[in-house]
Amino acid sequence: MLVTALTERLRRIVGERHYRDDKEALIAHSYDGTPMLQSLPDGVIYPESTSQVSEIMQALAEYRVPVVSRGSGSNLCGGTVPVQGGVVMVMHRMNRLLEVDKENLTATVQPGMITAEFIAQIESLGLFYPPDPSSMKISTIGGNIAECSGGLRGLKYGTTKDYVIGLEAVLASGEIVRTGGKLMKDVAGYDLTKLLVGSEGTLAIITEATLKLIPPPAEKKTMLAMYKDLYGAARTVSRIIEAKIIPATLEFMDNPTIRVVDDFAKLGLPRDMEAILLIEQDGAAETVERDIARIRDICEQENADRIEVAETREHADKLLTARRSAFTALARLRPTTILEDATVPRSRIADMVLRINEIARKYEVSIATFGHAGDGNLHPTATTDARDKEEVHRVELAFEEIFEAAIALGGTITGEHGVGAVKAPYLEWKIGKAGIDVMKNIKLAFDPHNLLNPGKIFAKETRKRVVIERG
Amino acid sequence: MLVTALTERLRRIVGERHYRDDKEALIAHSYDGTPMLQSLPDGVIYPESTSQVSEIMQALAEYRVPVVSRGSGSNLCGGTVPVQGGVVMVMHRMNRLLEVDKENLTATVQPGMITAEFIAQIESLGLFYPPDPSSMKISTIGGNIAECSGGLRGLKYGTTKDYVIGLEAVLASGEIVRTGGKLMKDVAGYDLTKLLVGSEGTLAIITEATLKLIPPPAEKKTMLAMYKDLYGAARTVSRIIEAKIIPATLEFMDNPTIRVVDDFAKLGLPRDMEAILLIEQDGAAETVERDIARIRDICEQENADRIEVAETREHADKLLTARRSAFTALARLRPTTILEDATVPRSRIADMVLRINEIARKYEVSIATFGHAGDGNLHPTATTDARDKEEVHRVELAFEEIFEAAIALGGTITGEHGVGAVKAPYLEWKIGKAGIDVMKNIKLAFDPHNLLNPGKIFAKETRKRVVIERG
Repeated sequence: MLVTALTERLRRIVGERHYRDDKEALIAHSYDGTPMLQSLPDGVIYPESTSQVSEIMQALAEYRVPVVSRGSGSNLCGGTVPVQGGVVMVMHRMNRLLEVDKENLTATVQPGMITAEFIAQIESLGLFYPPDPSSMKISTIGGNIAECSGGLRGLKYGTTKDYVIGLEAVLASGEIVRTGGKLMKDVAGYDLTKLLVGSEGTLAIITEATLKLIPPPAEKKTMLAMYKDLYGAARTVSRIIEAKIIPATLEFMDNPTIRVVDDFAKLGLPRDMEAILLIEQDGAAETVERDIARIRDICEQENADRIEVAETREHADKLLTARRSAFTALARLRPTTILEDATVPRSRIADMVLRINEIARKYEVSIATFGHAGDGNLHPTATTDARDKEEVHRVELAFEEIFEAAIALGGTITGEHGVGAVKAPYLEWKIGKAGIDVMKNIKLAFDPHNLLNPGKIFAKETRKRVVIERG
Repeated sequence: MLVTALTERLRRIVGERHYRDDKEALIAHSYDGTPMLQSLPDGVIYPESTSQVSEIMQALAEYRVPVVSRGSGSNLCGGTVPVQGGVVMVMHRMNRLLEVDKENLTATVQPGMITAEFIAQIESLGLFYPPDPSSMKISTIGGNIAECSGGLRGLKYGTTKDYVIGLEAVLASGEIVRTGGKLMKDVAGYDLTKLLVGSEGTLAIITEATLKLIPPPAEKKTMLAMYKDLYGAARTVSRIIEAKIIPATLEFMDNPTIRVVDDFAKLGLPRDMEAILLIEQDGAAETVERDIARIRDICEQENADRIEVAETREHADKLLTARRSAFTALARLRPTTILEDATVPRSRIADMVLRINEIARKYEVSIATFGHAGDGNLHPTATTDARDKEEVHRVELAFEEIFEAAIALGGTITGEHGVGAVKAPYLEWKIGKAGIDVMKNIKLAFDPHNLLNPGKIFAKETRKRVVIERG
């Protein structure tokens, strides 16, 4: 519970209606897209301007009350669960597209704008903003920036980080900083812009972003290739890149995912395939045609059992549905779905998928894997039941071993979902003790009293590594 | 002078020959590419491995002796001048290309490798590393990373930052950290990789880098467009981008530069032109042809007086020579050449060039401007004589006013050269007091005793802003 003097001050800043501490508001903001993690905040506040955010932060800093800023809370790492209570700051009222500058190819936007709405507006102006996280129909631009969201177009176009060129942010003290600008180049001091992207609300509260836009590709073509041999699919991925083709999209689904998706979406997918690749290329018409033809050749050489190239946009949408519905389809299977984010160098995808399958068998848990093959970014997804503590424990052990396997293959514990609360115990496995110490010092540099999203990224204790027993 | 116990320890680490404190070595490492800035170090050390760098840093930390790591010292911001003495660490012995991974399209390289040699090796393997700073024949990859170097291909391909995906670095304590990896996506904690790029040797010493490579473009075409009207040239730049064409190169030279370059390189350039644009497009053959034709149309609509499209590689090289020789040609005019780096949103280039000309007239100094028009990154270049203190003072006042003008137009004090010692007094103009405070805290987070390249980025005092008198 916050002291009355503070809640009164917060109400004065945003207006009576926009600070809430009734039970409904607290419960609604006690969880996010992450299963099995809940913690009540003390209050929920909805600012409508940067100056309000600044005033709120001054008040919270004075009273040493933690704050978790969030958009829609669609993250999967417990990134916006208020694990230490305090105030949840919801950015949905700051949701305007402030400017599209066609000469400089930039957009300036408030953090609470829904990503899909932003993309729709940008595309209606004949421009292109590539980051397209699967959550984009509900997630916000601010949330995407906080987590450095990826998406299906990351291989060719990069992730959110590659498009954020300027930020306005409020520091823990309430001070306002502006970084970067409508500038393609700026090396005036440390790159605070890129440091804030992916910092998960732990360094500052983002109140405005300047995003780089690019010209849209003229054409796009979509195909599926299906394999009875997992390594054939994996070799196809590597050989496409080695052939110096960078597809816009290069996605992967394993056999368990294929079955579940087909049950759900009735697409008539062949249920005996070990892997499906979804491949898209975009660009100038001639380039697209040539690349798709060369990719088709590679798929054939690697013994794809079936190849479908979409001839119409409707056909392409149907092929895309297979991949786009993977999470939804898996989520229907059992009460609890835990989607992870282990990432490896793209040359190690098949090794990683096989290790995931081995680990799932070892712990007798059900894990389906899909993801961004071209990026080496896999989403092993466990379907389980939160009420079955014993099974959930086995799932956790399996994921621990999956993180360890990813790192052993030169990979990382998270490619695009963030560390949050859930992966904090494993961060040291990736970056080592010296790396953790540097990051903690950076956190202190921004937020000396640990008020911004405390309990995230850094764990009280690093998990001991499990011993991997092969076979 | 360092105490004998320390110099003996340093000699034991690297071997007798690789630590020097004779006068020749000290003088040779007392300056860099920046005019009018010199300061003697106490010693010069040449490590050959990461573990040596780590041992050196442990020794220097113990004795609280500053260290300036450097490659060839070709920077233009005083970034590698040992302004507080101490040890200069020269990375030239760590100059190997450790690996090119064709499946993952990455190269792993030591910091002391010369950039042009690296690019040549990468291109001989049929791959492409785009950052091409003008200094690349002498500058090193490590120096490029420290300064986040740009180049002529930045508009389409980005700068060094966009290609560094993993680093090994030694901290001030001597601890070794590894960030990122052969990973297209990694959000495991704060992005230390991007934070170290452009940190000018003030946060850590880079000992190894993993760089992203891309497939090379199939074709390239080069053209020049010449204008009697500066605004026609500037509008051409904006209209090309608005037409959704992103050229590989889009460079600008003003009239003073044109005259000097023509004197120097005897290219037969028309000396009455106010501006020349050098434009290159690369990619698939059809795309290149189409884009160059469309760009040509735009140049004609904007009343270009002369347009030359290179039909052969030799012809293209001749056109490129005009731009590539700008600095060398200007440097021949008078004893001292000061090349600056003010950057504005690309839509403001003409305004910026006119302001530069106004400012040069006001202070009666000679400034020629060329640069990366597509990026809004201009290089106003003063030719002067360091011995004429009064004139040099006027040049400094002019540059102060140029920085202020760039910021007033939404720009920055440096686009690709870094802050170093030279622009430190102006950094606060760009990022404000709160921004400076955050950056200083980050510096302390990495380097609590201020041993890594002290006296850079942060000035003892911020310069007062000059009053801009218009007209």
